[in-house]
Amino acid sequence: MPEYRKDIIIDEWVIIATERAKRPENFKEQIVKVENKALSVCPFDRGNESMTPPESLRVDSHGNEVDKDSEWQIRVVPNKFPALVPNALPFSQQYGPYMVMDGFGLHEVVIQSPEHITNISELSREQIDLLISVYIKRLRAIKKDSRIESVVIMVNQGKEAGASIEHSHSQIFALPLTPAILMKEIFRTRSYFNQNHRCAMCDIINFEIKEDKRVVYENKEFIILQPYASKNPFETWIVPKSHNSNFENIDAQEASSFAQCLKVLVDFFYIDLNNPAFNYFIHTGTLGSTEDSHYHWHLELEPKLSIKAGFEIATGIDICITTPEYTAEYMKAGNFFKP
Amino acid sequence: MPEYRKDIIIDEWVIIATERAKRPENFKEQIVKVENKALSVCPFDRGNESMTPPESLRVDSHGNEVDKDSEWQIRVVPNKFPALVPNALPFSQQYGPYMVMDGFGLHEVVIQSPEHITNISELSREQIDLLISVYIKRLRAIKKDSRIESVVIMVNQGKEAGASIEHSHSQIFALPLTPAILMKEIFRTRSYFNQNHRCAMCDIINFEIKEDKRVVYENKEFIILQPYASKNPFETWIVPKSHNSNFENIDAQEASSFAQCLKVLVDFFYIDLNNPAFNYFIHTGTLGSTEDSHYHWHLELEPKLSIKAGFEIATGIDICITTPEYTAEYMKAGNFFKP
Repeated sequence: MPEYRKDIIIDEWVIIATERAKRPENFKEQIVKVENKALSVCPFDRGNESMTPPESLRVDSHGNEVDKDSEWQIRVVPNKFPALVPNALPFSQQYGPYMVMDGFGLHEVVIQSPEHITNISELSREQIDLLISVYIKRLRAIKKDSRIESVVIMVNQGKEAGASIEHSHSQIFALPLTPAILMKEIFRTRSYFNQNHRCAMCDIINFEIKEDKRVVYENKEFIILQPYASKNPFETWIVPKSHNSNFENIDAQEASSFAQCLKVLVDFFYIDLNNPAFNYFIHTGTLGSTEDSHYHWHLELEPKLSIKAGFEIATGIDICITTPEYTAEYMKAGNFFKP
Repeated sequence: MPEYRKDIIIDEWVIIATERAKRPENFKEQIVKVENKALSVCPFDRGNESMTPPESLRVDSHGNEVDKDSEWQIRVVPNKFPALVPNALPFSQQYGPYMVMDGFGLHEVVIQSPEHITNISELSREQIDLLISVYIKRLRAIKKDSRIESVVIMVNQGKEAGASIEHSHSQIFALPLTPAILMKEIFRTRSYFNQNHRCAMCDIINFEIKEDKRVVYENKEFIILQPYASKNPFETWIVPKSHNSNFENIDAQEASSFAQCLKVLVDFFYIDLNNPAFNYFIHTGTLGSTEDSHYHWHLELEPKLSIKAGFEIATGIDICITTPEYTAEYMKAGNFFKP
């Protein structure tokens, strides 16, 4: 059973995922360098469906939910080595000065194609549309469970970004708590709202469109920008122009517009930047309350183009070796982000 | 001029270090994989002193400060490509919805041997004693500058941990602000103190010694432990038993005891664990006030034995794939941590 443990010095949770425990001796082999499992048969390919745990969703290429023997385009299955499990209780216990809680939650894998593709950019625009619709479907379904407080949807692209199976996939984590980073964003944007009676992200959007230094792409509903306080070279945000706390509340037109942005962005990384590893994730308001209405959902993409060294780990202050103005200029000069 | 920029969504600073700016095109070469500079001549070796900026401290093997033409054992020099510079003003300005401040601070390199060694474990026990004394000397000197609010001393061991020059060295960062992670630790331990009238770390030490599950080594003044809420396999803390907010206040006996712990720890990583990359850093109270007297300084060592993937980046919640109890048992079973 995985468990949440709380560090009382910094007041943050970690997850100890015993399901994927390695023997201490194994670390002598410097597993970090050979993280990709040498699988002779890919469990995510069409035909190998029995190699994964039973699916929670299967859709065909039209986005229709279909039953378990039908042709599929996307399948959502529980992670075989989950960091969180549904058969646990989300109540913490005291252990000496610490807190501990069973690793309750969901840890799902979104297999985004039956073909063995290794980069999300290999998905067509229509397949990205489908992927976004699956994200929304799962979020709306998970939201019905009142024990779940927050959901994180993310992609690890490339083994340096933590992808242990190369077949392109997303992951969905559903948690009984609000994680530290999201909590801080929600807390900070709430105090900004209380002070200014405006959303901080809406202010950023207005300022950035006017400044025209860090916005690399814009359609009717979204902007793509290099954030002013960029943590990494080519860190990129996709932000909806209209204020909305929760991703799962977007309508079909916004979903399509979002898919357009995501497609052009992953194509840029794959083709122009020569396929670096990256992570992207969706930051969205917590579930089941209207408390976070001041929050503004968005997607963040963090390329693995620099190393987090001692300073970053000790302080939480990232050192970025390029300016976002410079990378924005470079992105706009190419062929990917034409209006 | 490097600059601090504040992300107003999460309310944290980043440093944009233009001194080490790379052209966007360079990222196509996936610099992260070839971070080590191919230097034909090492600027840190004996005889190449003119390749570094003028030193702020030079000591001989007895720890005596010596002048710039004398034989040396440790030299402290400003970083040639600094993330922070002393000739700047630590006052922030508004820029649209954001905050920005010149990159004021110190960014120093501690060249810990004139010989070309590539692992800190190659330093003898006496040389580690000397290194600790240099850390303390620099901290006490920097503390006199009232513009400096906090100092971080750290090591990047190995290129995967961010070491761009292989010659073994430490780095010292002096900042006009308290970074997010230290701020959170100080804030949280203060509220723990207010609630319990005890130091959180003192409570941890007492509990861990009694539990005897995660302490791997103990001498009169310090314990080495695998922290209960471990973020990474083999994350290790060295913690002074007697309550002390600031590292630079330790006496000669404690410094020697600390050096003993550090030596056995880096030897374990180098020899037993087969030389993985790691970062270590000292978390110590802020400078120039007695406000943080509830804080308890310590050293944290974070091995690069797992990858921070999308979940960790999105949430701040680390997933650790071993238990600290298991790694502690492994460490105690070997030959390094004998009492």
